[in-house]
Formats: sequence, C-alpha cells, structure tokens
Amino acid sequence: MAGDSFGTLFRYTTFGESHGPALGCVVEGTPPGVPLDPARIQHDLDRRKPGQSRFTTQRREDDAVEVLSGVFEGHTTGTAIGLLIRNTDQRSHDYGAIARQFRPGHADYTYWAKYGRRDYRGGGRSSARETAMRVAAGAVARAALTHLLGPKAVVRAAVVEIGGVAADPARWDWDEPARNPFFAPDPEIVPVWEALLDDVRKQGSSVGAVVAVEALGLPVGLGEPVIDRLDADLAKALMSINAVKGVEIGDGFAAARLRGEENADALEPDGQGGVRFRSNHAGGILGGISTGQPVTARLALKPTSSILIPGDSVDVDGAPIQVVTRGRHDPCVGIRAVPVAEAMVAITVLDHLLRFRGQCGAAIPGA
Amino acid sequence: MAGDSFGTLFRYTTFGESHGPALGCVVEGTPPGVPLDPARIQHDLDRRKPGQSRFTTQRREDDAVEVLSGVFEGHTTGTAIGLLIRNTDQRSHDYGAIARQFRPGHADYTYWAKYGRRDYRGGGRSSARETAMRVAAGAVARAALTHLLGPKAVVRAAVVEIGGVAADPARWDWDEPARNPFFAPDPEIVPVWEALLDDVRKQGSSVGAVVAVEALGLPVGLGEPVIDRLDADLAKALMSINAVKGVEIGDGFAAARLRGEENADALEPDGQGGVRFRSNHAGGILGGISTGQPVTARLALKPTSSILIPGDSVDVDGAPIQVVTRGRHDPCVGIRAVPVAEAMVAITVLDHLLRFRGQCGAAIPGA
Amino acid sequence: MAGDSFGTLFRYTTFGESHGPALGCVVEGTPPGVPLDPARIQHDLDRRKPGQSRFTTQRREDDAVEVLSGVFEGHTTGTAIGLLIRNTDQRSHDYGAIARQFRPGHADYTYWAKYGRRDYRGGGRSSARETAMRVAAGAVARAALTHLLGPKAVVRAAVVEIGGVAADPARWDWDEPARNPFFAPDPEIVPVWEALLDDVRKQGSSVGAVVAVEALGLPVGLGEPVIDRLDADLAKALMSINAVKGVEIGDGFAAARLRGEENADALEPDGQGGVRFRSNHAGGILGGISTGQPVTARLALKPTSSILIPGDSVDVDGAPIQVVTRGRHDPCVGIRAVPVAEAMVAITVLDHLLRFRGQCGAAIPGA
Amino acid sequence: MAGDSFGTLFRYTTFGESHGPALGCVVEGTPPGVPLDPARIQHDLDRRKPGQSRFTTQRREDDAVEVLSGVFEGHTTGTAIGLLIRNTDQRSHDYGAIARQFRPGHADYTYWAKYGRRDYRGGGRSSARETAMRVAAGAVARAALTHLLGPKAVVRAAVVEIGGVAADPARWDWDEPARNPFFAPDPEIVPVWEALLDDVRKQGSSVGAVVAVEALGLPVGLGEPVIDRLDADLAKALMSINAVKGVEIGDGFAAARLRGEENADALEPDGQGGVRFRSNHAGGILGGISTGQPVTARLALKPTSSILIPGDSVDVDGAPIQVVTRGRHDPCVGIRAVPVAEAMVAITVLDHLLRFRGQCGAAIPGA
Repeated sequence: MAGDSFGTLFRYTTFGESHGPALGCVVEGTPPGVPLDPARIQHDLDRRKPGQSRFTTQRREDDAVEVLSGVFEGHTTGTAIGLLIRNTDQRSHDYGAIARQFRPGHADYTYWAKYGRRDYRGGGRSSARETAMRVAAGAVARAALTHLLGPKAVVRAAVVEIGGVAADPARWDWDEPARNPFFAPDPEIVPVWEALLDDVRKQGSSVGAVVAVEALGLPVGLGEPVIDRLDADLAKALMSINAVKGVEIGDGFAAARLRGEENADALEPDGQGGVRFRSNHAGGILGGISTGQPVTARLALKPTSSILIPGDSVDVDGAPIQVVTRGRHDPCVGIRAVPVAEAMVAITVLDHLLRFRGQCGAAIPGA
Repeated sequence: MAGDSFGTLFRYTTFGESHGPALGCVVEGTPPGVPLDPARIQHDLDRRKPGQSRFTTQRREDDAVEVLSGVFEGHTTGTAIGLLIRNTDQRSHDYGAIARQFRPGHADYTYWAKYGRRDYRGGGRSSARETAMRVAAGAVARAALTHLLGPKAVVRAAVVEIGGVAADPARWDWDEPARNPFFAPDPEIVPVWEALLDDVRKQGSSVGAVVAVEALGLPVGLGEPVIDRLDADLAKALMSINAVKGVEIGDGFAAARLRGEENADALEPDGQGGVRFRSNHAGGILGGISTGQPVTARLALKPTSSILIPGDSVDVDGAPIQVVTRGRHDPCVGIRAVPVAEAMVAITVLDHLLRFRGQCGAAIPGA
Repeated sequence: MAGDSFGTLFRYTTFGESHGPALGCVVEGTPPGVPLDPARIQHDLDRRKPGQSRFTTQRREDDAVEVLSGVFEGHTTGTAIGLLIRNTDQRSHDYGAIARQFRPGHADYTYWAKYGRRDYRGGGRSSARETAMRVAAGAVARAALTHLLGPKAVVRAAVVEIGGVAADPARWDWDEPARNPFFAPDPEIVPVWEALLDDVRKQGSSVGAVVAVEALGLPVGLGEPVIDRLDADLAKALMSINAVKGVEIGDGFAAARLRGEENADALEPDGQGGVRFRSNHAGGILGGISTGQPVTARLALKPTSSILIPGDSVDVDGAPIQVVTRGRHDPCVGIRAVPVAEAMVAITVLDHLLRFRGQCGAAIPGA
Repeated sequence: MAGDSFGTLFRYTTFGESHGPALGCVVEGTPPGVPLDPARIQHDLDRRKPGQSRFTTQRREDDAVEVLSGVFEGHTTGTAIGLLIRNTDQRSHDYGAIARQFRPGHADYTYWAKYGRRDYRGGGRSSARETAMRVAAGAVARAALTHLLGPKAVVRAAVVEIGGVAADPARWDWDEPARNPFFAPDPEIVPVWEALLDDVRKQGSSVGAVVAVEALGLPVGLGEPVIDRLDADLAKALMSINAVKGVEIGDGFAAARLRGEENADALEPDGQGGVRFRSNHAGGILGGISTGQPVTARLALKPTSSILIPGDSVDVDGAPIQVVTRGRHDPCVGIRAVPVAEAMVAITVLDHLLRFRGQCGAAIPGA
C-alpha cells in the first residue's frame, strides 16, 4: 500500500532513518499466546549488529530493542506489537559535503529527484540500518512459527559466495555459520574470505556476495494462486533487502539449463501413507504453493557502493564532482544480510501460514 | 490480499481455469481518457496465443477478448475495465487418468493438498493459460503509459537463452524479436534454436529459457521505500509468472562478482542542466527507485514439466505410478513468456507511476 | 486499494455499467469444498431483480448469472470465482439530452468533474445496477457461512420504514419479508405502504427508507482492533450501497440518548459453562469484536433522485436547465436494497471469520 | 489488512495499550515538503488530552509526542513518519479484580474470547487511549491538506448533543467550540450541559453524545467507485472510533424521511463558469465522490460503560459478579471524540486527495 509494510494477516511496518533518533516498527497479526521473550528478539538483532568483526562496519550500535506493546505476561496478546531501537552512535558528522553530493551506487539522487529533498545523514531512510527492524519483526515471526509448527520449523541462511569465491557445497555444515564472522557454512572457505576481505578493505574497495536461505518444517499448502504465490512473495521480500539484485528459488537460473526430465522432481510414497519427493529442484514450491520440502532461495548482493576509491558524480547543482565515501562501512554487505534474509523468509512464511489457515481452516499438517 | 490481484492504484484481478468456460479480469484504476482500442489488446494477446509456430503448444485458441466495461467512446472512463476471453478449444478429454495423478513438476499435488480438491482439467487454475489475462491487462497498462509518457515509454522483452544456448549480446537488435518465432533479438541464434527445439520435441523432452525485459522512457522517482521498491515489486510480478525460478535486476547475480568501483554507475552532467549515468549496472533502479535509465530485468524459466518421457509419481491414493503427459504442450514455455513478462513490467511500472504522482504530485518529468 | 473491491481474505471485485454489455465480479478466497449451486446465487439475484412488483423499476432484466470459474463438480475449489451477468434490456435510448445534463442528486456531475468524461447511459458505473454483483458475491458468502457455521448462521434484512412511516416492532415477524413486495416484517404496514407508494408514483416523486439487517449464529471473536473492527467494516460495507446516507450498529443514534447503566448489556452465566447477555443494545459488537449475539445494523436510504418532478440544474457547458427523469425507476430504492444489505453483511462477516481463523486458529466456536 | 491501519496512499498504523509503556504510530505516504512543526501535532493532542476540565477523565497524561523520523529541517521528507507518546500516569493499580472481570459494555469479554488472553490493565488495546495516535496522525494530515489546498481547507467538529439535549442550530458559531470544555458550537447550551454533566457525575452515571464534523475547501472528485467511496471510507473511519454506534453523511437518517424533490440538491451556474449547489442535503458527496461542497457527517457515541452504578456480569470462570468501575473516567466520551473525529476525517480526505491525483493527475482544482 503505502510502501513501508509487508504482509497480509501477519504484517509489519517500519519507520526510521540511519541517523535519526530511532528506528521502529509495528508488527500486526501475531497469533495470540506465543511465548515472546525480548531477549529472543535481541539475540537476532545481535547477529545483525554492526561492529561484530573487522569485516563489518565499525559503527557502534547497541541495537537494544524495546517492546512497547502487544506482549503481556510473557506472551503475545494478538494485538499490535510496537518495537523501538534508539540510535546511539550518530556521530556529529559535518554533513556539509555529503548533503550536496549524489554518491554513485547510492539512492541519494533518486530520493532527491523523487521527493525534492532528502535526509542525507548516513543515507537517511535508504540506509540498510532500517533492516534492523526487519530482523526484530522476523524474530517475532520465528517465535510464532515455532509455537505453531514446533521446533522442526527452522529458517536459516548462510553466505555461500563472496567476491566470486564460492563455498564448497560438499563441505556444507549448518553448524558452521554461527562459528565464523561470515556466516559461512564451509569452514575451509573462512580463511580464504578473510584474506580476500582484508585485501579489499586495504584497497578501499568492496565485494558482493551470494546468500542462501531455507525454511524447513513447513506444511504443504502455503501460497496463493496466482499472484500471491509463495515464491513471488519471497522474491519481493528478498529483493526488498538493500543491495539485493537477484533472487532464485530452488535451482533458479540453473533450472533454465536443465531438461524437463531432469528438473521435474519425482514423487514416491513415503511409506507412511503420504508422499515424498526424490529431489528438490523446485525449491519446495510448485505452482506457487509449498510442497512440504525445504523452501530454498538464493539472493545476490552487489558490492557496497560506499568505498574509498573516488567515483565520478555530480552535486545537487549538476556540477561534476568526485566522491569518496569515508567513514564506517561494510566491505561486504552480504554478510550482515544473512539474519535479514532469514527474517524476511520467516515473515513471508508465517503470513502465508495464517492465510492458509484462514481460508482452508486446516489443522496445520506440519505441526 | 486474496491472491489473484496485483497493484495498488492500478490493479488487476483475474479468474479462470484452463478448461473452464472462460478467463477474465478486472482492471481498476486506469487513468481516464486513455485511447483504448480493443484491437490493441487483441494484438498483444495474439503475440502470446498458442499455436503460432511448431515451437509452441498446438492448442488452438482464438483468445478473442471482449471489453465489457470501463471504455466509452473509444477512451477509458477511469472506472473498472472488465475483460473476458472464452475458452474454445477445451477438448473433450478423457480425464480419467489425470484426475487421479500428481504430475511431477506440476501443481497437481500442492493444489490437491492445499484445498482437498482440484479442477484437474488441463491444470485448472494453475495452468499458464491464466497469463492470457495478464497480457490483456498489460495492454491496458501499455496504452496508459503511452498516453502519460509519450511514445518513448516502451516495454519490451526478448528470449536470450534457450536450453543453455545464449544469444550473442553483440548481435542484439530489438527489431528482431518480432521477426522470429522465438522472440530472439539475435537473428543468427534462430536456426540454432530451431534445431535444438526440433530435437527436444522429438525426444519428448523440454528445455528452459532466459528472458530479458526492459522498460524505457520512465521518469526518475518510481518506487517506494522501503518494501514496495520498484525492484521488489518487479521481482514479485515476474516471479509470479508460471515456471519462473529466478529474477535479476540489472547485473543481477553478476553484480555479486563485481568490485564496488566497477558496479557503482558514475553520474555526470547531461549538458542540459540534468544528470546522466555512464553505465547501468544497477538496471535503472537505486534504493528501489527508478533512476531514469532503462529498467532492466532477466527471468529464468524452468523447462515445462509436461513431457513424453515417463516420470515417477504417485496417485491420489498414494500408490506409485508413471506419468507421461500426452497432449499439446510447449517444449519451451519461455518463448510465450515474453509478452507476459512485458505485461507484468508495464503493469508494475504504471502502478508506481500513479503512486508517485499521487504522493509527490509531480508533473511527470519524463513526459 | 483501487476502489471496486472489498475484503481481505474473502474478497470480491466488480465491474460493469448500467447499459454496458455485462456486469461481472471476481470472488477470491472462498473456502474450498463449499457446495455451490448456481441456482442458489440465482435465487438471491431474483430477490433483487427489477420488475418484481409495481413498486420497483419496470426495467426487465433476467439477471441470469453465469459461473465461469472456481466451482468444480458442484463445490468451490478455493480458487477465484468469476461471475457474469449480461445486460439484456438496454433500451436504445436517445441519450442526447442526458449525455449533457447533470441530474440533481445523481453522480453525473461528480463523475464528469473527476474523470473529465463519463458513460452517461443509465448512470454508467454509478448506477445501482452494480449491486447485482454484490448480491451474487453475497450468495457465495452465504453458502460459505452455512458450510462453516451450520444452518443457524443466517443473514437477513427487512424494510422497517418507508417515507417516514415505520413498521411496528411489536408485530415483527421474520417470515413476513418473503411474503410482500416491500420485504416488510410487519404485515399490517403493507397496505399502508402500498397506498403511500401508489400516491408517490402518481406524483412522480420518490421516498426514502430504513432497512434493518442482522446476522445470527456467529461466534464470538470476529473483528480486529483497532481499525478493521467488525462494526467499522460493516459501516463501510453498508454505506457503500447506493443511496445510503446513514448506518447504525445496535441502538445507533438512540444509544446517544441512553445513560451508561441503560446501555451496557449485562452478562450472566448461560447455565452451560458459558456466558450470555441480557440485552443487545450493542448490536452484538463490543470493542469492534462480535459478542456471539445477533449482529444488528440499520441503514437509511435517501429517496431516489430519478423523479418526474422537474429539478433545476446545469448542463456540461454550465448553462441552467431543468431536468425531468423519465424512464423506469424505483419510487423507493430502499426496497431493493434489502438483498444488497444482506449480501454486504454476509461478505463482511465471512471475511472476518476467515481472518479470525487465520490469526487465532480457533476451531470455530459457533459451529 | 492486519487491523491497525487505515488508508491506501496516505496510511497510518498504530500500536500501544492504555497502561503499557507507550503508544506509537507510523504515518506513511505524506507528501514531501510539507512544513511540519511538532508543536502543531502537540496542539491537536492537547485538545484531546485528558484532564482538561472536570467533564473529562482526571487521568493526567502529558501526551508529549516525539517525532522520530520522516521530518528533516522542518519539512516532511516523504518517507515514513514515526510518532511516539510515552504513557506517564499508569497508576500502580491493584488489577486483581479487574483482571478476572468482564465489565459490561466493555471489550473485556470479546478480547478474552477472541485471543484467549488479554492485557486487562485499563482496557489494554481496546482503550480509547489509542485515539491519541489518531489525533497525531491527523495533525500530519491536516498539515498536508493545508499545504496542498491552502488555508481554506479546514476540518472541524463540534459536540451537538449531550444526553439527548441538543445544541440549537440557529445559534451555531464555529468560533465557540474552542471556548468551552464541551466543544459546543452554541454558547447558550454550555451551562445546560454543565448542569447535566455535574448531575450525571454525582449519580456515577454517564451520557452519550452526538458530534458533527465537516471538511471545507475540498475539490470535486475525491472518492472512488464503487466501494472505496468517500462516504463509505468516512463511515469506516468514524465508526472505528471507540463508542461510536452510528454515522450519518449529510442529512443521514433524516434523508430517509424526505421526498425526492426535497432531497436532491439543485445545481446552478456559479457565475464564474462553474457550478454551485443551492443546498447540501447530500453532505457534499454524490455517488461516493465529493461535490466541492462541505463534506458533512455526524456520529453518535454511546455513554461510557465505566460507571459507578453496579452492573451484573460474570468473571472469567463464568461466575456471576457485580462490577463497579471506580477510577478516572469520562462521564461523556463524546466530548474528547471531537479532535479524534476531525483527525479521522482529515486522514480519509487526504488519502482520497492523493488517490485522485494519482489516477487522474489533476491539478488540484480546489487549490
């Protein structure tokens, strides 16, 4: 509708600028009775928090979340949940230069041209700092998914490629992302990426990344024909994350290079009266509706545009300038996108779970 | 909201099954006063129509569209436009087998599991036949874009890869897609794809494709922070097309392999008091808002799952079966996706144009 | 969103003009498995159909509805239902005069001023003829309510006042509305209204009416805080009916004249472990959420503006004119509003039932 | 969608409970460049603030609003505006009794039955305290209306009836509401209402009220066919205010007692090439679209259910109890509804103004 919200039954709406007093969001439609400890939200926020390693921005933010409504005696009441994070590290920059510059690769020019003015401090509304609220809303969604579907309902993500150097799928271990600063699923890629990113930082440059995300433990039936498909809503949710330029479901672009007989996942009896698939090229979605297999997606993130290498641009008067973005920035924004991607998938999946239950009334079969 | 509609101010909602009596849609929010000749809609429908060459399904449908409301004396009135297409070639199949089978790669199983029943005739609601109505709605959107922005506002698409064999970007010619049955922009790839598809058809198999789509002549300013971004809405619009498994904006996944200084498009004065970009890695969108450059996207389509090669599956009772999809099918659904992709982009762009005008009130700067 | 639709999970969208080729609508989100006989929809349409008595317009329309999708083997599939009614009695009027006149009390001027053009034939999109599609969508909603809640879920309406002459609440009998041309619940008021309306018709004038509508057999819990309340959505649904100028829930304006202790409905144990109310001033809604009592509302309809008595106005050039509306019109539009009000209430209630089930997952307690 | 928001292009979403830490809202879609002084928002909040006279609740709240985003250098940026009000006077009640009681006329029972739990402190989410955020969002809408339409665009309301005692329309003076604690437009009714309310308070009872609200200086053309009519959206907006049980547009229920020739407002040339109406029975809306005349509405508010007179009810275990609501309450909630009604009308009108501009692109004719 108006731009800052996502979802139909489970819905969140955010506000806040990079260097304004606070970020916040409203989370509507959470099922009642979900145990919700603010520490659970804080835990997710801490995974995204800046300054966790030398490979992310050195801005210092506590990202301490305050739960302002919708939770009573430790459980959700079913009414709107208000969440707030105060910005604390708004350095008293001299914004004189940046106020009049259009940084290449940033939204400075488009915001200015669209609105006729912009909050230029740290990118204002266009800053990826807004994604903190998505992570907070996502933590609520995760808690609700666990409540409704049990502990086997899991949403998780990992960085699978940085600067064109990919992790090895053969070494994939989902315990690994929590153990290294890259959310890498492959322990052997970690030193390679460390060296690469140290080099990139020294050059004042930046690199892109590819993130894989998956949702496990979902029932068959999530997604609506023919527009609000689960894959279509996931594509929107993931493409709306800052710096994302591509989204794949299942085999994605690789599926375009398969033959029909290679791509179509065979079904077989599961031995318990049900059905199972022998492969998952489809990424757990057929006809826009979840199959009960893991829902898998990948997203491509461009290299951050905030670099020390001078770039040509113009100022608000149309005069040519050179822009160098000093300050604290992520050499690879893909890393911190991991908890954001998880959040967006959790939010999307929960919304579709509630919609499914609303229309079809099913006892949730995955529970 | 309820699943079958798309857009906020300019909005369409479809209904209809593959083998039901008719397909239809309601198009809301069209600006008043747009010249709208039903022949213009028919023209776009004919580009998508089945049976145009031996490389698409041999089903015969006139796809004759009837304009039932919202147009008076040759112009849109601003009120809801009703569009209807009767299905004519609903062969009196013996659906006995298909009624109980879950075809691999199709939505048979997910619809059945979600709803507890399904219209199995030709895929019912999950059939790509629904996209005829998208093309019809898209034709309305195109007419409105031309009315508001002038003839330089163009949305166009082409097939750039079939079965892993790509067209040569160096030979790209936008006059070509209208001249060959593949919507190929590269005339030299045509005989290659002909041979490939003839071979695929003989084998009873199918192949995937990659489609490129672009929108030209748009003003700066389309797209909302931070969820209803132009790129996010395009991702949803394109991913909602049948068989699409991946969407890229601008450089897409390739951007993840660039350095920051390579990826960020430099700006320079355009010599007329404005601004221009030296490159377009961003695909015409920064911070989710159009830059005034061409908006470019690519979509990956899986090979159609309707093939003659037997595939393992189960029936509604959970018994193992082998499925062979006889009948009339596209060996490469990516071909007929070209006008559908154009339609979805036109619809998305028009909706954002109206939203931009609504909030910001701008005289449309691209006009 | 775009204006012609209503609902969140259960949603309908209409198109069509008074004298265009057809009216239609798309009904989305119907639960699957609802038995739906087209004759059931036709039955409701026939109750609203023009020409049923000398007290409604003499326009002759069959209002024969065609179900184009979403129903298979006698049951809803859960996918979009397309409904179509062809206009048959579009008299070949000479529209020369009306095309340039703004009829007082009609939407001629506002449509023309808003859109810069209008379909002037019979009021175009502003005609109450559009409400036929609401009745059709409402019949789907009723069938779903019966399926979900059982036969005790009933939505019914009656005319309780015509031209300032009210039915006697003491004689209220819900079997009566089906027995007289006024949908009057009080048999003794029928001859009074006959005489009144015959007199009004002879004078070429028209009168207003008040309609009462109620929904029985609903569970506790329908309605959302704090905007999408059940009463707020009912107010919108009913106020959107042509000619409606006022809506009351429960005691409505009379509640503004009660003391707190008179108005607050006392609760007591129902003897079966539950709760019941001793009165229903609230109209079955507290805090925007249904109480389990009958949901009751009243709507005021203005006298139709199509009268034979000349009225002063202007034409499209701004010149003063006198307008006399010849042709076939309802002397009291409130009569035919009865099935429309029932439809809008059924639609609103079903949507909230599905939303309730979606968020709260409750076994439906009223079933 | 999810319940706590209103609007399409201009949209607000609220959160917060009566006795939680804070109330807040997100306002999306404000046009950029609107001068917005937080003192302007505070001014409107102070008009609604409790404890302004002995005729409203004695709860003491500063209702100090904090603007957290979307405003930069004194003007709106076009991005989401976050607003926050901390609750300060949350008396450390012993909620032991109220926690288990269903107060008659309150939402205690419906919230509990819907969600299975509730925040019982001061009514939680169902408290009218939430309307503070509507007033704050309304102040943003008013500022935008002034910016777009000029100073003649005014939204104003007054109490016209308390406890069945009506103000005299012949003495109506729009300067009066600011001068007395009742927002009464008739100075001579003030002492009458004072005596009445003092009496009501002594009895521990409460009375209802009727509020009139109007919007001046609007262009022709606001409102959509056929559901999102301006009157239908106003009906929803006003009915969603706590304690409202009825809404009228223009003559409302009185229109149902007029003849067609009395009710239809005649048009005449305005002497400047335009059109004017001779009367305004329609309340400034025809066919759901604004006519350019004042938009007028009335709302009926029930007497507050929080009274000292004991009422029969049950507790959460279903046992019969008697409820007396001690504490600080409004003897007539209709008084403080005046700024809330103004806010809801301003929000509704602005949203439709932006939608009109978006679809029809009109230079705003009222400006």
